Amino acid sequence: MNIILASTSTLFGETYLAYLKPELVKLYQGVNEIIFIPFARPGGISHEDYTAKAAGFFSELDIKVKGLHEFEDKATAIEKAQGFFTGGGNTFLLVKTLHENNLMNVIKASVENGKPYLGCSAGTNIGGLNMKTTNDMPIVYPPSFDCMGLVPFNINPHYLDPQLELKHNGETRETRILEFLTQNNIKVVGLREGNWIRRINDKITVEGSLPTRIFEQGKAPYEIEAGSILS
Amino acid sequence: MNIILASTSTLFGETYLAYLKPELVKLYQGVNEIIFIPFARPGGISHEDYTAKAAGFFSELDIKVKGLHEFEDKATAIEKAQGFFTGGGNTFLLVKTLHENNLMNVIKASVENGKPYLGCSAGTNIGGLNMKTTNDMPIVYPPSFDCMGLVPFNINPHYLDPQLELKHNGETRETRILEFLTQNNIKVVGLREGNWIRRINDKITVEGSLPTRIFEQGKAPYEIEAGSILS
Repeated sequence: MNIILASTSTLFGETYLAYLKPELVKLYQGVNEIIFIPFARPGGISHEDYTAKAAGFFSELDIKVKGLHEFEDKATAIEKAQGFFTGGGNTFLLVKTLHENNLMNVIKASVENGKPYLGCSAGTNIGGLNMKTTNDMPIVYPPSFDCMGLVPFNINPHYLDPQLELKHNGETRETRILEFLTQNNIKVVGLREGNWIRRINDKITVEGSLPTRIFEQGKAPYEIEAGSILS
Repeated sequence: MNIILASTSTLFGETYLAYLKPELVKLYQGVNEIIFIPFARPGGISHEDYTAKAAGFFSELDIKVKGLHEFEDKATAIEKAQGFFTGGGNTFLLVKTLHENNLMNVIKASVENGKPYLGCSAGTNIGGLNMKTTNDMPIVYPPSFDCMGLVPFNINPHYLDPQLELKHNGETRETRILEFLTQNNIKVVGLREGNWIRRINDKITVEGSLPTRIFEQGKAPYEIEAGSILS
């Protein structure tokens, strides 16, 4: 497999995907066209405009981008594609759309066969075992929370450390993930913005500029450095 | 109906339910025992300890508290109860537990028949039409997102204004609620901490120390003052 699962598409003050550009050159080596999966976006920007935004960036890499929404027969389009990119938005809407169109397992099979996959945010959540560690609001009801399991754990994108100055009674991100662990025996990778997961064949590492926080049942949360192996 | 749906149980620096005490004296007038619904709590505190925490507060009001988890026949216990309090925690876990035990509609019927109901946080979410505007992490998969509809709208408890100083790419609360409105034509009451919704018979008002932010399809979000009527 050949995968990047990124916490975010855009770093504060930077342009879309800029911080990942050197990695994406390697991820999509030999590829001249990819399919963009825009289904996480609930509004504000149409599937067409969202695809155009991705295409704008990928033109710098001489890679053409087609939106999955453009194809009548989406499963065949996925099977014929050279590679994929799933953008961020609302994970509930993305997972509902993929399940209702029976596409989750088609993308999974294509990626397991070696086609490059990039996910950002919601697109990263669906690379995990299930979407139960998303930060998103449940604005629609998906038929299942199961995802592709391109890596053998769950991911919490946009992982945010506790904001100690906030006089607010809402749960911290860490509290939420620890609550997940009371109900599920699944490792969670708390991926801070600027970090990503890289899978090349069977080797999975965490990369980026910051340490990454790992949550496991029966262990105190701990930090790992960029380059560390994940399993 | 006779209902309080509160944003939070506890204000920063205060003790459990302290800010609501004068209101709760009125809500539970003539009641000497209530049922506490502890099912939102995913861990950290047992159902027994959570019920004891509620009982500690309600002893100041000379009201006894029994945990719903203590009853073998929970539906009958609800039907015989004088009133209810549903505490906070994880809304997905609360809704899953109530639906799987066929209790959501039993509580709804009892409250519609006039028994007092207090909800805090997750317990407030289930007073709305559905749980699609919760802030919680989807740590379990409920059989439905439908809730009691004790009020004809949805609630976002712990409503938080955008934190402009945060260099983070996660969505603001307002963005999330606007995304909800792209998929659902349901009013959302953004209930800041310190505020609550009061229903007495058919009159529904918002109360508390801060303005409340309202979100509706096709309108810009707007603020209403304490004492305003909700419909």
